[in-house]
Amino acid sequence: MRLRNVQYAEEKIASNEAYITSVSREETKNLNQIFDNNRSLNVEIGTGKGQFIHTLASFNKEENFMGIELYDSVIVRALEKQLANPKDNLHLVKMDASQIDQCFAPGSISTIYLNFSDPWPKKRHAKRRLTHENFLKKYETLLKKGGTLNLKTDNRKFFEYSLESFNRYGVRIEDISLNVHEDESVDNIETEFEEKFKTKGPIYKLKISF
Amino acid sequence: MRLRNVQYAEEKIASNEAYITSVSREETKNLNQIFDNNRSLNVEIGTGKGQFIHTLASFNKEENFMGIELYDSVIVRALEKQLANPKDNLHLVKMDASQIDQCFAPGSISTIYLNFSDPWPKKRHAKRRLTHENFLKKYETLLKKGGTLNLKTDNRKFFEYSLESFNRYGVRIEDISLNVHEDESVDNIETEFEEKFKTKGPIYKLKISF
Repeated sequence: MRLRNVQYAEEKIASNEAYITSVSREETKNLNQIFDNNRSLNVEIGTGKGQFIHTLASFNKEENFMGIELYDSVIVRALEKQLANPKDNLHLVKMDASQIDQCFAPGSISTIYLNFSDPWPKKRHAKRRLTHENFLKKYETLLKKGGTLNLKTDNRKFFEYSLESFNRYGVRIEDISLNVHEDESVDNIETEFEEKFKTKGPIYKLKISF
Repeated sequence: MRLRNVQYAEEKIASNEAYITSVSREETKNLNQIFDNNRSLNVEIGTGKGQFIHTLASFNKEENFMGIELYDSVIVRALEKQLANPKDNLHLVKMDASQIDQCFAPGSISTIYLNFSDPWPKKRHAKRRLTHENFLKKYETLLKKGGTLNLKTDNRKFFEYSLESFNRYGVRIEDISLNVHEDESVDNIETEFEEKFKTKGPIYKLKISF
């Protein structure tokens, strides 16, 4: 069942190249070419089933959006949302986040979104966390002047780690909330995960620039 | 009743100079002279009724402690604890925190503690917050090399403000917890306030250096 599901996802992804690009390991691509206009580019890393990036793309027609996700079994749901209601300012990319610096031009991204990223709680996996210094270097290179990194998570330990990592790296905090859903004024687009888990505890949010 | 209470506190403070020093507005003092030894000095700003600093002083006989508090009606409780069980490594100071740089020598403090500080939620009172830039300048001057500022609060907005203020000033985060009482391993001394309010929501904790 599990295997059939993956095969179905793989096939669906492979047959919809207009909406989703696959980047294999070690491969280099120029993903900036995908949109044939100069609108600003916003990228969600770890886009999951895509509710967040789809909503954002719907509300901001004058900007471009990309959703990056490694796993077939979830990104296929984001693809299905795109097939049901195509948006020409949204494109999906199946790839490993660590390759982003080989796929986008320096200074070409306006906003990077990290929503409910895998916390990789074991210390030996720290380098896999999307807020590890190695990733911050890539984000700093890819973001244009004035660009921001927006992070949202319900995982306290991951948020604490991220604050420490950002502090060591030396970034500027633009905005912080330690309980998004208590802050009525915060303009918040929910992910599928957030809808489910927001009643279990606080959702943390942080906007930084380099 | 209220007046009588304050008068009682005032008198008790005035008649126990061995345990508590009063510094009036604009006055300059050398509080480093109070302890006639060279043990390291740790200062709690806004010591309230003194449970925290008393506990810390009991457990660390080889270091000196000072508890600073502006209000007679609460510091008198800290004084009563001292009268009941005197500790020669603890001294109380009734003064306004903004005068600390006129009362301690530069580089003379090992640790500064801010516990459940008044959040001063109104924007026009931001300068009164003990993590406002103006206070950070004083702390940086007063702390010795390797010294730390340790902050604990249950007030989310004050903690968010403090994180932003620290970030703007440029400090190093040594340790952070967004829910002290969920972190079993954290070595935590509770204040009176914390005992009462820890079940109402998270207690935030931060250790920084300059």
